[in-house]
Amino acid sequence: MHLTDLAWPRVDAMSRDIPVIVPVAAMEQHGHHLPLFTDSMLLREVVRRVSGTLGDRALFTPLLWIGNSDHHLDFPGTLSAPPRTYLDLLNGIAENLLQHGFKRLVFLNGHGGNEVPGRQAVFELRQRHRQRTDLLLLFATYWSLGTGSGPAADLGTEQTEMGHACEWETSMILRLAPHLVAPHQNISPVPPGNPFQPASRGWTTRDRSAPGHIGSPHLATVEKGERLFQKFAQEATAFLERVITWDGRSWNG
Amino acid sequence: MHLTDLAWPRVDAMSRDIPVIVPVAAMEQHGHHLPLFTDSMLLREVVRRVSGTLGDRALFTPLLWIGNSDHHLDFPGTLSAPPRTYLDLLNGIAENLLQHGFKRLVFLNGHGGNEVPGRQAVFELRQRHRQRTDLLLLFATYWSLGTGSGPAADLGTEQTEMGHACEWETSMILRLAPHLVAPHQNISPVPPGNPFQPASRGWTTRDRSAPGHIGSPHLATVEKGERLFQKFAQEATAFLERVITWDGRSWNG
Amino acid sequence: MHLTDLAWPRVDAMSRDIPVIVPVAAMEQHGHHLPLFTDSMLLREVVRRVSGTLGDRALFTPLLWIGNSDHHLDFPGTLSAPPRTYLDLLNGIAENLLQHGFKRLVFLNGHGGNEVPGRQAVFELRQRHRQRTDLLLLFATYWSLGTGSGPAADLGTEQTEMGHACEWETSMILRLAPHLVAPHQNISPVPPGNPFQPASRGWTTRDRSAPGHIGSPHLATVEKGERLFQKFAQEATAFLERVITWDGRSWNG
Amino acid sequence: MHLTDLAWPRVDAMSRDIPVIVPVAAMEQHGHHLPLFTDSMLLREVVRRVSGTLGDRALFTPLLWIGNSDHHLDFPGTLSAPPRTYLDLLNGIAENLLQHGFKRLVFLNGHGGNEVPGRQAVFELRQRHRQRTDLLLLFATYWSLGTGSGPAADLGTEQTEMGHACEWETSMILRLAPHLVAPHQNISPVPPGNPFQPASRGWTTRDRSAPGHIGSPHLATVEKGERLFQKFAQEATAFLERVITWDGRSWNG
Amino acid sequence: MHLTDLAWPRVDAMSRDIPVIVPVAAMEQHGHHLPLFTDSMLLREVVRRVSGTLGDRALFTPLLWIGNSDHHLDFPGTLSAPPRTYLDLLNGIAENLLQHGFKRLVFLNGHGGNEVPGRQAVFELRQRHRQRTDLLLLFATYWSLGTGSGPAADLGTEQTEMGHACEWETSMILRLAPHLVAPHQNISPVPPGNPFQPASRGWTTRDRSAPGHIGSPHLATVEKGERLFQKFAQEATAFLERVITWDGRSWNG
Amino acid sequence: MHLTDLAWPRVDAMSRDIPVIVPVAAMEQHGHHLPLFTDSMLLREVVRRVSGTLGDRALFTPLLWIGNSDHHLDFPGTLSAPPRTYLDLLNGIAENLLQHGFKRLVFLNGHGGNEVPGRQAVFELRQRHRQRTDLLLLFATYWSLGTGSGPAADLGTEQTEMGHACEWETSMILRLAPHLVAPHQNISPVPPGNPFQPASRGWTTRDRSAPGHIGSPHLATVEKGERLFQKFAQEATAFLERVITWDGRSWNG
Repeated sequence: MHLTDLAWPRVDAMSRDIPVIVPVAAMEQHGHHLPLFTDSMLLREVVRRVSGTLGDRALFTPLLWIGNSDHHLDFPGTLSAPPRTYLDLLNGIAENLLQHGFKRLVFLNGHGGNEVPGRQAVFELRQRHRQRTDLLLLFATYWSLGTGSGPAADLGTEQTEMGHACEWETSMILRLAPHLVAPHQNISPVPPGNPFQPASRGWTTRDRSAPGHIGSPHLATVEKGERLFQKFAQEATAFLERVITWDGRSWNG
Repeated sequence: MHLTDLAWPRVDAMSRDIPVIVPVAAMEQHGHHLPLFTDSMLLREVVRRVSGTLGDRALFTPLLWIGNSDHHLDFPGTLSAPPRTYLDLLNGIAENLLQHGFKRLVFLNGHGGNEVPGRQAVFELRQRHRQRTDLLLLFATYWSLGTGSGPAADLGTEQTEMGHACEWETSMILRLAPHLVAPHQNISPVPPGNPFQPASRGWTTRDRSAPGHIGSPHLATVEKGERLFQKFAQEATAFLERVITWDGRSWNG
Repeated sequence: MHLTDLAWPRVDAMSRDIPVIVPVAAMEQHGHHLPLFTDSMLLREVVRRVSGTLGDRALFTPLLWIGNSDHHLDFPGTLSAPPRTYLDLLNGIAENLLQHGFKRLVFLNGHGGNEVPGRQAVFELRQRHRQRTDLLLLFATYWSLGTGSGPAADLGTEQTEMGHACEWETSMILRLAPHLVAPHQNISPVPPGNPFQPASRGWTTRDRSAPGHIGSPHLATVEKGERLFQKFAQEATAFLERVITWDGRSWNG
Repeated sequence: MHLTDLAWPRVDAMSRDIPVIVPVAAMEQHGHHLPLFTDSMLLREVVRRVSGTLGDRALFTPLLWIGNSDHHLDFPGTLSAPPRTYLDLLNGIAENLLQHGFKRLVFLNGHGGNEVPGRQAVFELRQRHRQRTDLLLLFATYWSLGTGSGPAADLGTEQTEMGHACEWETSMILRLAPHLVAPHQNISPVPPGNPFQPASRGWTTRDRSAPGHIGSPHLATVEKGERLFQKFAQEATAFLERVITWDGRSWNG
Repeated sequence: MHLTDLAWPRVDAMSRDIPVIVPVAAMEQHGHHLPLFTDSMLLREVVRRVSGTLGDRALFTPLLWIGNSDHHLDFPGTLSAPPRTYLDLLNGIAENLLQHGFKRLVFLNGHGGNEVPGRQAVFELRQRHRQRTDLLLLFATYWSLGTGSGPAADLGTEQTEMGHACEWETSMILRLAPHLVAPHQNISPVPPGNPFQPASRGWTTRDRSAPGHIGSPHLATVEKGERLFQKFAQEATAFLERVITWDGRSWNG
Repeated sequence: MHLTDLAWPRVDAMSRDIPVIVPVAAMEQHGHHLPLFTDSMLLREVVRRVSGTLGDRALFTPLLWIGNSDHHLDFPGTLSAPPRTYLDLLNGIAENLLQHGFKRLVFLNGHGGNEVPGRQAVFELRQRHRQRTDLLLLFATYWSLGTGSGPAADLGTEQTEMGHACEWETSMILRLAPHLVAPHQNISPVPPGNPFQPASRGWTTRDRSAPGHIGSPHLATVEKGERLFQKFAQEATAFLERVITWDGRSWNG
């Protein structure tokens, strides 16, 4: 169910136990071959599939396309909320929903750079409402919701984790909007990885990639794209089913 | 031209004299009969028409649907950036565009509540970049861009100015998405106006309207909707033509 | 009645239905011929006349001479609160008055640059106290309180709206403090207007006027000054009478 | 010399070695017998005398009557900038003056509650401009500028330090505006002093004084008032002479 | 090498290629059986061992014991920087070190609650200094620096990841300060885990544990404590060796 | 009693009338001859002596070594919280303690640069909790707690007030850690004093001292160090006894 389409009395009449999902993505460079709106397009498609399955059991707000993308700002076209503004914005939207009486909030994320501020935001939010015992405040990234770890062998992809404008993302945009994909077959891969892992390292994209992508776009195919969408939509649906069936009080639900 | 669809090298190759238009609207209650996304839907349609006309001579960012709507927060479903966060967000997006080298920025607005913070934001922005002489920083509301004052007689509307979920907005949503409009013919009008005008008065929507609309939704028709879209698209196009033909330096252009 | 002159027990004993007026102006360049304190001097005179008429029916705080004047900072002598500080300051003063129990607050403004932040401040204030139904929070500029639109023909001025260090302001300072007016008869007029109107445009004064004034100071006379003061004082008085007679609850009062 | 009266070209032509004095005071309760504007009235009088003596060798801005007075807010009529806003405001005004090229800034203070934030502000200011070697940034309270410590025996006062609405302040208001002083001869003294001195203690006025004064207003006379004004004006003048004759570079001047 | 013990000329003479390590921990409840300073004591011991090994090749600042512990504030004795203040503090300390010319900064962390804000801080820091190509900005948690994933079988612990006041932490405090450990053998374990993993969930400690610990303190022994210290010191040393041998420019070092 | 060593149930069982002392110092340059940690080492020693005397009648938090030291940042090795962050941090720690129910808070200070922000913080804190009548919020500097003014003749020191890395501090570090003191006998004294006293003046250390010290380190001896510690510990103990015996309600206690 999409909040955009409802008039307020319909929201007013709703059970406040319904999960509200706030899709958050980005508007940032995705290499020479993918459009700036890639993250938002991909999450929008995941949401389209998931919301179709869940129907009236989950309420989706519009997708927040402005994300935490300052690390991509050296590439023209990138738009980004300043870091603290992004924190304020996530907090603000969540406060709106709490004010309306909702108790199960899920930021459903489609951009790696949103993960840290998103987790910071749900932390801050929980502390401000620390006396409440009926809240479920979650931040979840759509490609990380599989229960197993590591790659699903049957996907047929070589990458085993998300990169940036990589095999995975390029495949999915090929599936969604092939006319927006520039020739990608001859693009050289850029290896992922931070040699100081598992430490967190401050970086800008230029530190790691002159063209802007990280991973192996040349491996992308439309079939992989469809398989990835199916997998991610299925995993996100299963995750939201757990939110729907939470008992509303306890930690373990 | 839509920034969403471009890869960054295409932006990099672009003349920085092109105007960049940031559509800003809202996600807020629109009475018993219109959907929460009304302002964003209407501006999206205006942008669709205007961008079609201007083609490659103007660059549109995605529409920022989160606006300054705290005054509607008593009506469930409204989402709003906190007032200072909204200022920060507009400033932040504009700073991104300046960092990319663009010089002509237009916030094209579709929500009355964004006007004051939008004007505050362009003021702050100009002061921070006060040594620049090549900037054109504008905030413009789509229904206020007519050169004459007062209503255009040939529109056939009774209202002579924008309300909220009113004759005008209801007509336009009827034109765009009639399936999202609840029966509106018997809704009682709520008179607009602030008895302390021309003073600015702090208000929340509940001060003025229990159902949430201001104006005369019962007068709406699909034909009025189309005429309004034509008028607003034409006026916005003419306005942006002035931005395109600005000489790039002087006050008068 | 002036708050400055009272001891606190007198305020404590007062009805909290009395309007409290906070005069806000500026300290900024006014061209080659007028003193930096022009806006504050003019508003002080308007307040002097209005408070004399209203007597004990309205309570005036001291005039806040520091305003939102960053756009004039290229001209030495201008003093200005940074934009966000000005918002905080107006909010802070209003919160003081609410804490003391007053319900009808009027910022009476004498500087164009204060209008947007002043409106932003009353918006923020109303939202923070959104559960109250007994508040009247207003921001009003003294030269905009006439009920009709356009110039009053009998004033004999050529300008039909306020400029800056213009025919109107120069005339009024001539009436108040002619010894502070440098020769103005041969100053060339600077046309007002923003060619991108009705859009709001970010500007600094240097964008528009090398000498600092906007309008036609050469047309100023002491007689016009007195007529303007009479008109503005009368209009402000009438406006405050409406505040005094507000019913204390409803939107329409 | 008063900045209020000058047009900007006059300021532009000025030597930037002239000290600029920003008088800062307050608008706060002063017991049952003195007006709310007491601190500002007293400092205004000191400034009047000092500026008369110094003539063109010092430039005075208008007096900032809004101070750091939150500790008096339980007494109606008190107006106060919130603590951080007050810091921002002092910083902002000083930045304006530095932007105009002035190098010797003196906040001349007339309210005890401004001392800590005033010192914090000049600290912050110096750190932000730490590479400069030509700045003299001072915060000085008018009643603390005597070179000796303790009371001057020839003043004939019993109090040896400033209180609040006390012998000293009441005497000076008696000298300035006796019609604003309520009968004070029978007011019981409130002893000054913090039993945890020399530690700094967080307090509100209600902690210390139900009527609002601290000290001995019953001892006030108009003659003491004149003697205090003479002493304070003389000391402030001598202090500003040291600022004027500073060598412009070294610590010791 | 410890910064605490040096005089500034010694720092001034140092190569700025030396890594500077800022140990960050916490002061928060650790169940019924461990002292509030647990996290800081443990990290202090790790630092003691690591700094002894590295000698003059690494520079350690004092340990910042105030951390991001708001989620523990329902348990008396917990001290915590507010979330945004903690971000500001980490940013501020890093800015100090950059101002002194250091290029390799490592926040070495000993508290789970610091991870998200620590990563946010290094992100913000890198963006502010985005033009620099010689910086290595890291945030690393001492118990997560092993190259393999999962538990080291030869440690003999049952827990395979860090809890809170758990088998691991209790063992280490037993090794360091057994007199500060209350009887722990009969404490019931509290299972770790967030049933909505891998989503991030806002929580306070009370959501998960009435006594305050998470994990299995009853399994703790002093021998396990020593083995854990050896492992963690060795891993942190190896990690810092990689920082020392970084080539100073490239991503891969 | 040291908070570090307690488990939370012990704190929970404690009387909330016990004073909580938060030692605050600094990490900043102390000339060519003293270590960067000087202020923290000295305060730690004072606390060690005082806490030993007071036993269970006072509760000490760990020492906050990061202080307000931006004025020393030109000397490498100095670490400092940005000015506003330091205010936020002191406020935050105090709020933690109030949340835990404590009512008597003492910031015990060992760095001159903390005095103004410390006083600002307790001011802000008191105002936020202005309805409370049971709070005692203090900020006290350990070398200023003597009841008499001026030097104690029997100390045998030449300096009569605290400098920086001076006779007093050098003597005390000699007493504590002679191996950390570089040869000091031939260091030239740097006279203290601000020629614009009693005005507060914005300064950085470089304005006043190239080597970094202020005062007369060449006069230091280990015997003076011990005498100073005894004096300061005794005075701080006596001061805290007054806090302990405060009646819990009234101003005078």
